Amino acid sequence: MASKSFYAIISGAGSGTVETNATAGRAAAVRFAKAYPVVLLARKPESYNAIVDEIKQAGGQAFGITADATDEAAVNAAFETIKKELPGSKLAAAIYNVNAGFSRKPFLELKREELDVSLDAAPKGFFTFAQKTLPLLLESVSDSPHPPSLIITGATASIKGSALFGGFAAGKFALRALGQSLAREFGPKGVHVAHAIIDGGIDTPWGKAYVANDGAEDGKISPDAIADAYWYLHTQHRSAFSQEIDIRPYVEKF
Amino acid sequence: MASKSFYAIISGAGSGTVETNATAGRAAAVRFAKAYPVVLLARKPESYNAIVDEIKQAGGQAFGITADATDEAAVNAAFETIKKELPGSKLAAAIYNVNAGFSRKPFLELKREELDVSLDAAPKGFFTFAQKTLPLLLESVSDSPHPPSLIITGATASIKGSALFGGFAAGKFALRALGQSLAREFGPKGVHVAHAIIDGGIDTPWGKAYVANDGAEDGKISPDAIADAYWYLHTQHRSAFSQEIDIRPYVEKF
Amino acid sequence: MASKSFYAIISGAGSGTVETNATAGRAAAVRFAKAYPVVLLARKPESYNAIVDEIKQAGGQAFGITADATDEAAVNAAFETIKKELPGSKLAAAIYNVNAGFSRKPFLELKREELDVSLDAAPKGFFTFAQKTLPLLLESVSDSPHPPSLIITGATASIKGSALFGGFAAGKFALRALGQSLAREFGPKGVHVAHAIIDGGIDTPWGKAYVANDGAEDGKISPDAIADAYWYLHTQHRSAFSQEIDIRPYVEKF
Amino acid sequence: MASKSFYAIISGAGSGTVETNATAGRAAAVRFAKAYPVVLLARKPESYNAIVDEIKQAGGQAFGITADATDEAAVNAAFETIKKELPGSKLAAAIYNVNAGFSRKPFLELKREELDVSLDAAPKGFFTFAQKTLPLLLESVSDSPHPPSLIITGATASIKGSALFGGFAAGKFALRALGQSLAREFGPKGVHVAHAIIDGGIDTPWGKAYVANDGAEDGKISPDAIADAYWYLHTQHRSAFSQEIDIRPYVEKF
Repeated sequence: MASKSFYAIISGAGSGTVETNATAGRAAAVRFAKAYPVVLLARKPESYNAIVDEIKQAGGQAFGITADATDEAAVNAAFETIKKELPGSKLAAAIYNVNAGFSRKPFLELKREELDVSLDAAPKGFFTFAQKTLPLLLESVSDSPHPPSLIITGATASIKGSALFGGFAAGKFALRALGQSLAREFGPKGVHVAHAIIDGGIDTPWGKAYVANDGAEDGKISPDAIADAYWYLHTQHRSAFSQEIDIRPYVEKF
Repeated sequence: MASKSFYAIISGAGSGTVETNATAGRAAAVRFAKAYPVVLLARKPESYNAIVDEIKQAGGQAFGITADATDEAAVNAAFETIKKELPGSKLAAAIYNVNAGFSRKPFLELKREELDVSLDAAPKGFFTFAQKTLPLLLESVSDSPHPPSLIITGATASIKGSALFGGFAAGKFALRALGQSLAREFGPKGVHVAHAIIDGGIDTPWGKAYVANDGAEDGKISPDAIADAYWYLHTQHRSAFSQEIDIRPYVEKF
Repeated sequence: MASKSFYAIISGAGSGTVETNATAGRAAAVRFAKAYPVVLLARKPESYNAIVDEIKQAGGQAFGITADATDEAAVNAAFETIKKELPGSKLAAAIYNVNAGFSRKPFLELKREELDVSLDAAPKGFFTFAQKTLPLLLESVSDSPHPPSLIITGATASIKGSALFGGFAAGKFALRALGQSLAREFGPKGVHVAHAIIDGGIDTPWGKAYVANDGAEDGKISPDAIADAYWYLHTQHRSAFSQEIDIRPYVEKF
Repeated sequence: MASKSFYAIISGAGSGTVETNATAGRAAAVRFAKAYPVVLLARKPESYNAIVDEIKQAGGQAFGITADATDEAAVNAAFETIKKELPGSKLAAAIYNVNAGFSRKPFLELKREELDVSLDAAPKGFFTFAQKTLPLLLESVSDSPHPPSLIITGATASIKGSALFGGFAAGKFALRALGQSLAREFGPKGVHVAHAIIDGGIDTPWGKAYVANDGAEDGKISPDAIADAYWYLHTQHRSAFSQEIDIRPYVEKF
């Protein structure tokens, strides 16, 4: 039975789209909805409508808000909406799962706009999201069922700047920097800031044709397993916070 | 209800001793005993007797074997004993939690024997433990309830060679190297090798007088929280293995 | 005797300003001017005029161009100017030494504009600089006296997101990501991309009042020593490129 | 002209042997002999005889001592010999370049003796070498021409535990741990402890048949370039010590 006095918010959830992260966002929404009402932020209603229905049918509570994570005004408006929709409810968990403008190409062919997309979606979008959610998470420290959590989706490119992935890695490195800094600033105040390095392809409905790890069974990461990891991170005792975990298929080279 | 056909083994468990890790070993034993019969390896019966009783009283199954993790013959004999005590049972999880000869002192005062203690307890002891357990874990891949797991207890000194901690760090770095290598070799075969960086003081019954993090509440790591982390690692889906997680109190500087 | 057919360019040089990096930029300019004509990019003529004079008095060749590293059009114009000023000369070394908007403050007081300054000066400014210089460096591979080099000034915040330094670290992490990626893409083509982690305060004329490392002698990094490091990196044999070095005072805690 | 009042010592030099590191040791000996008398420690006279001759013919001063770096008594005797051979001379630089028992094989085929070889040659041998040389280096802080230096040869396996390289990596990780710890303890006392990650095959006279990087020109690391790096590290100003550098061919994947 979900507690109505605390809710979770997920930025970057979706289904049926080309966004890999979004699939993990959907799974996280479903997982956290077992405990909390869930708010979904996405750029288009198509991204969250099916998830909201799925959660409601399972007896949970959820609603979506259309907002571009990189648009400060839109994010501000979203939190006004939440205040009205969930009056008196406090924030228990915030997940930043926005795609960071993945593009693989020779550096000299990379457009500055492509770097901008990566920086907008990763450090800038997260900056806005964190500035809105951290004050709310701090308010929940005294009475939330688990330590209030801010969880960030990273990637292989968060720790390695591979050839041809410079633009993508720039955003992901910057996102990780912010996450580390916030963990060090807000951990002692009781908020758990964690970063997950998703080191492998995610198993998405629309990406079945994409073969990873030579087509090995379970060679792509189950979105549900990512959701389990996020739920585990959220429920960690405050004497034992993880700041960073890596997640990869058993067959992945690393 | 514990499955009788799979068991877990923990090297380096104890209670009421001066060994910090051992407290985490006890908690892990209790946690894994909810699912499996548990075998405890320790140098002295005093280290495991109380844990065995505790597990039995809680309805679990456990027994201890006296063996020094760094003594190859003793470890071999221990596994012969297990075969007799748990006929037909297969290994689901192995935890290497042996203390690595912690000593803090100026390098020029460090004795070669102190370095040896660290290397014996960390890479050498683990080497023997891994060579005995990995073949058994491989045999369990096809039918164990969760991916067979080899979990290693690391420390801050696994990733940072601080001043005055060279001997301790040498062993812990080497242990981490072996863990990484085994994760890469045995992951694709279905065995999950994970390394946990315990980055902070553990809250032990005998160490209440030791003040960490200015005496902050929950400023020392709960052994139960470490056990939860190990159980979480053990139950991860094989498409989403974590190789390394860090664990520290919310107030810890890092 | 400086070779006239190859030149070096330094973005972010200065003296007498409040910019710490700039002091290292000045030293690098003086050092590289022993071998090459040097072009100085800075936002204001005041930043490079004295350095140009100093180099000329020492018998070297140098000139400055006023350009904001984060302004794409201005950087483009600068390279047009170079073509006219040094006709037929090829690029041997490019140093990106631009300050990245250092600010230390609680995250909830940080303005989005402060994050922008960091991202503009670090990944974005470098992106533009690298896109202009890499094609020129590639042209020099066959005949430059040393492997053509692109050298990046990093900081402690390039590898650690400390509390209160999130915005600064975001830019510096992103800059490092780009550097790694370019090293992997352009190394095999013969261009040496190297990143220097300047882990400590730099000894500047204007910062004598700032005490580092309890006022220890040589407790702040000599700009000349940074210049030596950059020159060493530039002259490394292509069979032995360093991608990253750290530089810190002997008394620095790390 | 070599200063006679300071000398350098290199443990693990050789030529014409199957030891890759030794080739770098030879080059380092030749490089440091331009400035200092050089003492060569090796297990067999055949390893150093040719180098001693080469240095003498070039006008330098050198002699070899037969000692197994892992044999404490032999190392002690070696330093007694040095005292007699170079009376009044002080130690300026010590290089630990001993091979660490490289073996590539499945973990379950690895013998405990092979792990021992790696641990003996890396952390244990270095421990003895460092305990003998650090007191001598401390004595040189006040008047040596460059900051007294202890330089360690690492490898890819110092930072990555690859599959099948666990035993080798265990030793190399442990060696790096000790190096870090000593850098932090002895840096503030004026001794420069540096660790070089040699990330690639070294170009040896006897290994010409071994093809690295698809046979690319300069695809194997020049031993002379390693020697240059060590000399550069030795001559760094104490306000700008590097603790770690990586060295790899321009064509190396990393």
